[in-house]
Parts: sequence; C-alpha cells; structure tokens
Amino acid sequence: MKLDHLAEWRRSHTCGELGRDNVGETVHLAGWVYRTRDHGGVLFIDLRDRHGLTQVVFHPAEGGAEAELAERARTLRSEFVIGIDGRVDARPDEMVNDKLATGAIEVAATSLRILNDSKTPPFVLDEADSVGEDLRLEYRFLDLRRPWLSEMMGLRHRVSLAIRTFLNGEGFWEIETPMLVRPTPEGARDYVVPSRVHPGDFYALPQSPQLYKQILMVSGMDRYYQLARCLRDEDLRADRQPEHTQIDLEMSFVGEEDVFRIIEGLISSVWKKEFDIDLETPFPRMQYADAMNRFGSDKPDLRFDFELVDLSEAVTGSGFKVFDDTVTGGGVVHGMRIPGGAALSRKQQDELEALVKRYGAKGLARAKVADGKLDTGIAKFLNEETQQKLIRATGAEDGDLLAMVADRQTTAWRSMGALRSRIGNDWLAENPDAALPWRFLWVNEFPIFEEDPDTGQMTPAHHMFTMPMDEDIEYLESDPKRVRGQLYDLVLNGIELGSGSVRIHRRDIQEAIMRVIGVTDEEAEKKFGFLLKAFQYGAPPHGGIALGLDRIIMLMGRRSSLRDTIAFPKTTSASSLMDGAPSALEDNELTELHIRRELPKAEADQNA
Amino acid sequence: MKLDHLAEWRRSHTCGELGRDNVGETVHLAGWVYRTRDHGGVLFIDLRDRHGLTQVVFHPAEGGAEAELAERARTLRSEFVIGIDGRVDARPDEMVNDKLATGAIEVAATSLRILNDSKTPPFVLDEADSVGEDLRLEYRFLDLRRPWLSEMMGLRHRVSLAIRTFLNGEGFWEIETPMLVRPTPEGARDYVVPSRVHPGDFYALPQSPQLYKQILMVSGMDRYYQLARCLRDEDLRADRQPEHTQIDLEMSFVGEEDVFRIIEGLISSVWKKEFDIDLETPFPRMQYADAMNRFGSDKPDLRFDFELVDLSEAVTGSGFKVFDDTVTGGGVVHGMRIPGGAALSRKQQDELEALVKRYGAKGLARAKVADGKLDTGIAKFLNEETQQKLIRATGAEDGDLLAMVADRQTTAWRSMGALRSRIGNDWLAENPDAALPWRFLWVNEFPIFEEDPDTGQMTPAHHMFTMPMDEDIEYLESDPKRVRGQLYDLVLNGIELGSGSVRIHRRDIQEAIMRVIGVTDEEAEKKFGFLLKAFQYGAPPHGGIALGLDRIIMLMGRRSSLRDTIAFPKTTSASSLMDGAPSALEDNELTELHIRRELPKAEADQNA
Repeated sequence: MKLDHLAEWRRSHTCGELGRDNVGETVHLAGWVYRTRDHGGVLFIDLRDRHGLTQVVFHPAEGGAEAELAERARTLRSEFVIGIDGRVDARPDEMVNDKLATGAIEVAATSLRILNDSKTPPFVLDEADSVGEDLRLEYRFLDLRRPWLSEMMGLRHRVSLAIRTFLNGEGFWEIETPMLVRPTPEGARDYVVPSRVHPGDFYALPQSPQLYKQILMVSGMDRYYQLARCLRDEDLRADRQPEHTQIDLEMSFVGEEDVFRIIEGLISSVWKKEFDIDLETPFPRMQYADAMNRFGSDKPDLRFDFELVDLSEAVTGSGFKVFDDTVTGGGVVHGMRIPGGAALSRKQQDELEALVKRYGAKGLARAKVADGKLDTGIAKFLNEETQQKLIRATGAEDGDLLAMVADRQTTAWRSMGALRSRIGNDWLAENPDAALPWRFLWVNEFPIFEEDPDTGQMTPAHHMFTMPMDEDIEYLESDPKRVRGQLYDLVLNGIELGSGSVRIHRRDIQEAIMRVIGVTDEEAEKKFGFLLKAFQYGAPPHGGIALGLDRIIMLMGRRSSLRDTIAFPKTTSASSLMDGAPSALEDNELTELHIRRELPKAEADQNA
Repeated sequence: MKLDHLAEWRRSHTCGELGRDNVGETVHLAGWVYRTRDHGGVLFIDLRDRHGLTQVVFHPAEGGAEAELAERARTLRSEFVIGIDGRVDARPDEMVNDKLATGAIEVAATSLRILNDSKTPPFVLDEADSVGEDLRLEYRFLDLRRPWLSEMMGLRHRVSLAIRTFLNGEGFWEIETPMLVRPTPEGARDYVVPSRVHPGDFYALPQSPQLYKQILMVSGMDRYYQLARCLRDEDLRADRQPEHTQIDLEMSFVGEEDVFRIIEGLISSVWKKEFDIDLETPFPRMQYADAMNRFGSDKPDLRFDFELVDLSEAVTGSGFKVFDDTVTGGGVVHGMRIPGGAALSRKQQDELEALVKRYGAKGLARAKVADGKLDTGIAKFLNEETQQKLIRATGAEDGDLLAMVADRQTTAWRSMGALRSRIGNDWLAENPDAALPWRFLWVNEFPIFEEDPDTGQMTPAHHMFTMPMDEDIEYLESDPKRVRGQLYDLVLNGIELGSGSVRIHRRDIQEAIMRVIGVTDEEAEKKFGFLLKAFQYGAPPHGGIALGLDRIIMLMGRRSSLRDTIAFPKTTSASSLMDGAPSALEDNELTELHIRRELPKAEADQNA
C-alpha cells in the first residue's frame, strides 16, 4: 500500500460539522473509513472522526479521472485513515438522514489521500456488546473509536471543566497535592514506591489528599479543591479501579450546611450545562437512623417509594415464637409489602429468601394478602388481631406479599434493605420512565464510631478527624455509641457519590476521640504526626467532602461500569491489558532501589 | 486557653473585601492574628486571611463591656484563629492606607471568638528571606500563610483554569491517562510500584503521558490535553522536582505550525487574563542552527541582543597558531564584543575565562579595543589586518573587550553561549526594566539524532517517534546527521518552557529511524510494543507538545525557584520535610508486595 504524504494539507471541517449551509463549498475532510457501500455506479464511504460521520461519494460510472479516483477508493478498507477533498452536495430528499448531524448532505470526492492503512480490526466497531471486554481492553485504541465510548470521554471532559469553572466562581483554588506521600497505615492498602536516594524507605501513592487538604486549611488556603488522582491497592470488586479520580474539596470557617450548599450548586450547574435540567435544591436531607429504618440502607434509592416498616410492636404477643423470641431478645421485626407479590411463584419467593439470607437473615417470613387477611406462609402462626395489625402497619393490599425478617437490628436493616432494592430494581426495569429521574439525597447524622461486634472496640466510622455533633459531644466518653458525627454522604439513585465531614480543629475534642478509639499518642504521632503538629499552629474550623468523579460520569452517561468512564482502565486484577502493566523489571534496576524480589514459594520454584 | 465554639456563626466577608461602601455595616470576620499593636487606649489587630488584611480595633479605654472585650483581645498572640463581630468605620483621613485593599476602613470589634490558639511560630511570617528553606519546608503550613506564597498558589490556580478554558474552546478534551503504567526503559529513571497481585511485577509512574497520548490520537480523540502529573526519579538539580506538572497536548491531522498557533493562542490568553498584556503573535521562530551560531544556545534569551560572531574566516591566515590550527583542524573561532568590557579587571576577566573552561573551552582569547585597534591580551599575536577584520566582524567599539574561543564547533557554541548568558545577565541586573519584557521564541529544525562522540552511535534527540523534516527524509540512511526533525522548543527569556514534535505515523519511516538508531524489532517490541501495535490499526498524522507548568508559573510569578510554585515541594534529595516522606514500612507490608529490602552494605551493617 503506497501511502500519501500529509505535506501541508489540512482539514477544513470535521466529520460532524457540515450541513445544508455548506452546500456548494469545497471542503477538506480527514478521518477513518467506517463503512463502505459499493452500489456499482456509486461508492459510498462513511468517514468518521470523533465529531461525527460524513457520507463521501465516489462516482466510478462517470469515467475518466472520476473512475480512477473511485478505483483507488475501492481499495480502502475499514479503519484506513484518509483525507479527501470534495464538494458538499445536498442529499436528495428521500436520502436525508435526520438522525445524523450531517444527514442532509454528502461530499462528492474530488481527490483522495490515503494517510494510513490498517490491519483488519479484531472486532467491528459498531457492535459493542457482542465482544468480550478483555479483547476490547487489549485493543482499547480501537474500542475508544466507538462513538458512544468516545462520547463518554467528551462527557468526562466537559463535566470536569464545568466543576472547575463552578468552584472557581465560588472562590475555590485548585491546588495540587503530592503524588509521593508518606505511607499512613490507615484505610485501604497503599501502593508504595521504593526510594532510591533513601535506602530502605518508601513513598506511598495517595489514597486521597485527606491529610494534605486539611493541612491546606491550616495553611489558610480557605477554599481548596482538586480533581485528585487517588490510588488504592484493594482487591477489586467489579465496580472498583485501582486508580480513581475524586472531586476533593475543603473549606474553612464552615459547617455542614455550607458544604451542602456548595455541592448542590456544583451538581446543579453541571446538570444544567450537560442536560439543561434545573435540579431542585436544596436536596432532601435524611438522618442515618431514618434511612436505615425506612429503607434498610444508608444510600436509599428514592426513585421507588417502597418502605420498610418496623413491626416489632405489631407482632408483640403474636404467639409466633420466632417473632416473640426475637423481640424479647432485643431484636426487631422489619417488614414490607411487595405490591402484587402474591403472584410470585414459590421459586421466586425462595429466591427472595436466599437474598435476605445472604445478608445474614435466618429466613424470610411471608404471607400473601387476600380478602383483607393473611393467607398461606406464616399466616397460620398469627392470630387474626396480629394479622390485621401487620396489614394496617404495612399498608398491604389484596394481592400483595407481606415479607418480614426477625433478627438483630443491623441484620434486619441490611437484609430487608437488600430485599427492598431487589423489588425496587425489578419495578424500575418494568417502569423505565421511573428510572430516569435524578433523585439526590443527603444522608447525615451518622454514628461517629463503629463498634467491633467481637471486641467491642470503637473505630471511627469515617476517620478520626470527624467532628462530633455539638449536642452529642458530652457523651463522647460516657456513651460513645450514641455520638453522631458531622458526617454526611451524597446519594444519587441509590448510589453513594461520596462522603465528607466537618473536621475536628480543637485539640481537646481530638484527644477525647483518640481516647475512645484507643489510639495512643505514639501511634497518632506515627500515623498523623505532621497533621497533629500543624493543628497546634492555628487550625481554623473546616470541613469538606470528596465525590467520586468516575461514578458521577458513569451515572450521567447511563452506564453501569466505571471502566466506561476511564480512557485506559484496569481489570479486576489491576492489569492493563493494552500495555501489559504491571511487568517485570531487570534485577539491576531493583538493586538500585535497594529491594529484591521475594516471590511466593510456588512461583519461586517455577522460576528456579 | 478556653476556646470558643464555632456553633452556627459564619463569616459575612473575607479580610480582603471591606471598603468605604461598607461603612456602617455590621460584619463578621474570621482569620489569623497577623500583628497586634497596643497603644494603651486603643488595641489594633491586623486580621489576615488568604484574601487580605483588615484592621480590627478594640477600645479598652471606653470601659465596661468594651474594656472586658479588649482585655480578652490582649491575650491574643500571633496566628491565633479568631472570629469577630464588629462595625465598619471609615479610617480618619490621615490613617488611610492606600497600599491595602481594605486600607480605607477599620472594624470596631463588638465581640470576639477565639476559635483556636497557636504555639509560637518558629519564624515570623512577614520576613521570608531571613529563614532557612529547610525550616520553611518543615513548617510549610505556616510558610503557605505568607501572602506572597499564598498568592503563588492563586496564580497557579488561575493559570491552570485559563489553560483549560482556552483549550476547551479550541476543541481539546482533557483526558486522564493512567498513573500506574508499564515501565519503559527509556528516558529518565522510572519510579516503580511493586504489584501485590502479580508477584515480581512492577508498575511505573509516568514520566510523561507520551505513549498514552499518542495512543489517544490512534483512538481518534483528535485533540487531547491534560495538566499531567509526571514523576522522574532523577538526581535532582536545584531547579528540578521529582514530581512536576506538564501542560501536555496532542493533535491529529496537523503539522508544526498548527501546534505553534494553538500554543501562541494559549499563552496569549493566559498573559491577557493574568497581566492584561497583549502579546505579539506569532512568536518569532528560529532554526536551531541559527540559535547556536548567533547565541551559542538552543534557548537564547532575547532580552539582550549580544550576539556571537563566527570569526573563523576573519582569523584565517592571522598567523596566530592557536587560531590557525583550530580552523585548519575543522574547528571554529567564535567571538563576541563585551560592551564596556575594557574596564573589567584582570580578576573579572579571569572569571570569564574560568566560566568558558567549565564548558570545555581551553581558554578565552581576549583583547581590549582602544583607538580602533586591539590592545593588550592576544593583540600582539595578530597582525593589523586581522585586528581590523575582527573589529569589523564583531562591531566592537573603543572600550569594549573582544572575547574569543577557538575550539570544536559544539564546545565553541556551549562555552561562548555561557559567556553570553553571563554578560547578558549582568547587563539585565543593571537594567531591571530590560529584564521585564516577555520574549517568547520558537526554536525548531533541530537535528533529529544526536551522535555519541565516543561510539558514533546515533540516538534520538527527542524520542524515536519524531517525524523527520520532509526534505531530509531522503538522507535518513545515507547521512543521518543532516536530518532535521519536526521538533521544536518554546523558549521564554532564555528558559525552555517545553518541547514537542510532529510524530511518525508511517511504518516505513518508523522502521528507517529504528535502523539508524540500531533498535531491533525485539527491543522495540519490548519497549513500545503496544504503541507499535496500535500504529498498525490506522494511526492518523499527529503532533504535540508538553510545557512545564511549574516553570511557567515560576516565570509569571517572577520567582527563581520551582519550589515556590508547588504547595508541598520536595528537597533536592526528594524528601518532604513536612511529612517525613519517604519513610519506613513494616516487613510484613513488604512481604505482601513480594519484595524485601536489600540495603547497601554500610547501611545493612549499621542496621544489623
């Protein structure tokens, strides 16, 4: 294949740009051969770039130079890179394609430059879903040419800039925090970097800029943000990546509501720009305890309004031993009506029971509702009065299924919350319009500590710099479990977008927290010494939040995988299939870094 | 010290905001105690935040509640964090401070909240230069409170946003490339990250997104940019940091001039926004060979117009053996006039000679100019005719010093270039107004290869993906030294801001380059395999550039250290004095990463 040289030739337009107004113009286009259709007398080529598609036409039947040009065009194959000169013609009315931005025109080619050829791609670009993801990731440079995936990159770009523009308008400065930081034995596992200059020492890559952004507040930076690259060496679930980007911000002299207002403004401005939607603000707020009681989740999806009901009182004295024993033992009975659930088959009901069992419940008590009474299932264990109480409390109607879990509070919440999500998602699948709205929610007043169920040890629910709620500070040492933090999550359609808190800036409160969680001064010094030191030199009251940019883009793009939001994502085993990272290093490179390999036994044997 | 609680109190204004228009208003301010002046009857506190300073006044002499308040204010010390309520008063005319944004008013405090106290800072914030930099870096949270340094962060923020806004307007998308990449044994040393999941394998941190941005062009992204975090494990010179940020961009279907136009627009828009200066575009272009011949540098500082002159012809047949031997041996004689240099003492002249010797010259031949003739120095070796030729060629005048180096071309360039810089910088120091202008310059047409002086081996001057100039492609294999690349640097006031090139997108040219530099297919596959593979599937013509953001901010801020542009910089030994990175890890953490320490012998003994 003889390639043509670029020389001084330039595009005059992109492939997404020409319309009726350009008819008659001479244009220069460049792009990739997407589809070719040879109708004998006419040869059509859909020329593609990031901006769109333009139909280019060759007329072999006209003979002479035209025929010669068409002959050369016939040698083109998928994904060849070409440049063409041509004249913009209006398409005949019956050929106008309203779905295509350039659908009113076509370009009659007058010259053709083959700028590069291409091997046959391992998959066809316009059929995404039939291809295994591993192959797509290996050939990510082809995958990214798909218009929908390319558009995800455009969305991410536009949203990132809109975020920056909004925060700049609110007086925030974007400040870059270091990528090579001090390892802190906290949170997830650090990725680490051996130091060549300081033998035996290591840097960590930041899991988040948390400590540095707090230092920036101590530095008087007032309002900081960063679209921050964060790295965590976690065992990856399907929806995690070793690298992610967070919208990280921190403000001085503020409380929770100030952070809410900024984020509501930020989200609204992004939604307005991208979707021309006016979101209603303020977003609803819900206390953690409420969210758990009503939805069995601290990130309830409000697109469906099914709610859990605490039936502990209704079942008191029901005579049903499982319920009675649970309630007298300090547990709870939580239930919900499943609208129309009476029609569920035995197998479907068993699946629901299997679901709650996965969340630790011992079983799913259930009964159909018919003729205003409970029927089948556990109905036979319950007297008429209890049945009526349950029906009233849950609002169940004939044809519903009443489903209940009797267990410890946390198990009842988690398992019934999972059941609610399942029922709700099934309902959304049948009501696609109901799935569309953007239901934002602030969840706050979280407990500041979590108790280890085995040891009773208190650990910080978020991190140890979270400020307790004013009215709970007095219980810090006497009853830490009841202390709520100035701690909040932003939730969208059942997905947590991020969380934040007002931080502790006062030493007396910090020390009280450290006593509760049993952190000694030496430990604190080792882990956070530089932050605690900074706090001694005039730390202002401050608070902030971090939102997952990848998740926001995923939801905005109506996708279900974070990988669709990232140009070069990694697999769940943290590999890059395109470039083969991670890969081996030479021994002498390791020596220079003062480390050597210590392979697990099996591998060491293999390598020997 | 009893601290006050923040409760629901908020700022109404920042400390940089109040003016005559606010007189009479009740305001709430917060910030740090900067200076206190106790005049007995009146107590002044300069309250500082990132936005400015406001003078707060207490009146102990008025007795009652006022006196009580003033009494409390007297306990305040430097860097305490306070909130005050107060009334905005106009300052008496004689007290107005025009240099301060808030200098027309003061705030009469009506209440005082002590939000946090502070230990005595280890240095005074308004006296930067008397403090050692190590102490400043250890207490970076205090250092950053200095108004000038804080303002550097603001400058960096504003410029970063202006860059993004401009490039967005030009159709560029910001796309994040990975932080965990495949190690490529090329360029500087990689920082590497051991993989826990893939025993024995390593990621590298990106030295630049070079390969990934080229892949993005193959992916059809058309116009990419990123303010990219780059990491290099180099032995740091004073003006390097292990982490830096570059304005990284790449464009498809373009040549050199397209990149120039984008960057000129970018720089102009930033200069306009920040300084309200209209830069003249296009920036001047200069061929590499010209830059070297005239200025002895590929990054000439055009704020001073001293130029080197090639005197090889003028000295031909001078009879001065050093000159004659050099020229007949294939070397050159380069000279320049040093205006007024006849007044330099012997010692000063010797310093100049020492300078050129540091750059490899064997000596600095020199002579004063007096009465239209050469005088002193080497004058005695030169006949009258040669003297006149030298005076004419250099334009030397009475009172000047004529300085010359006779050596190999490269040594003459480098040493005389260094001399020119030295003379020029001395001149700038005496002419501060001349130091102010922004003299941008494109240097291009660089040789594409560098020759190893010992082995004769050709290596790529930039990287092996640089496209040769069209007219030189034919010499690739026959005379590689004469092949110039489509390779360019942007220079500002003698400092290289960055470089770029048009890349090779054609396999035939790529293979020719690889033959010249002696890279085998296997080596290429190992180093860049994934890029070469991508190139087989329809790579478009493309080119780009990367500019150092830190350097640009440093120059814009009229600073001389990159550390002044970075919130948390590292020292020349790549340490962070604030957080103590790098630091030790526990052995079990290393085991999990399949590595162990292998300390240099001396240290291992010490640790044993």
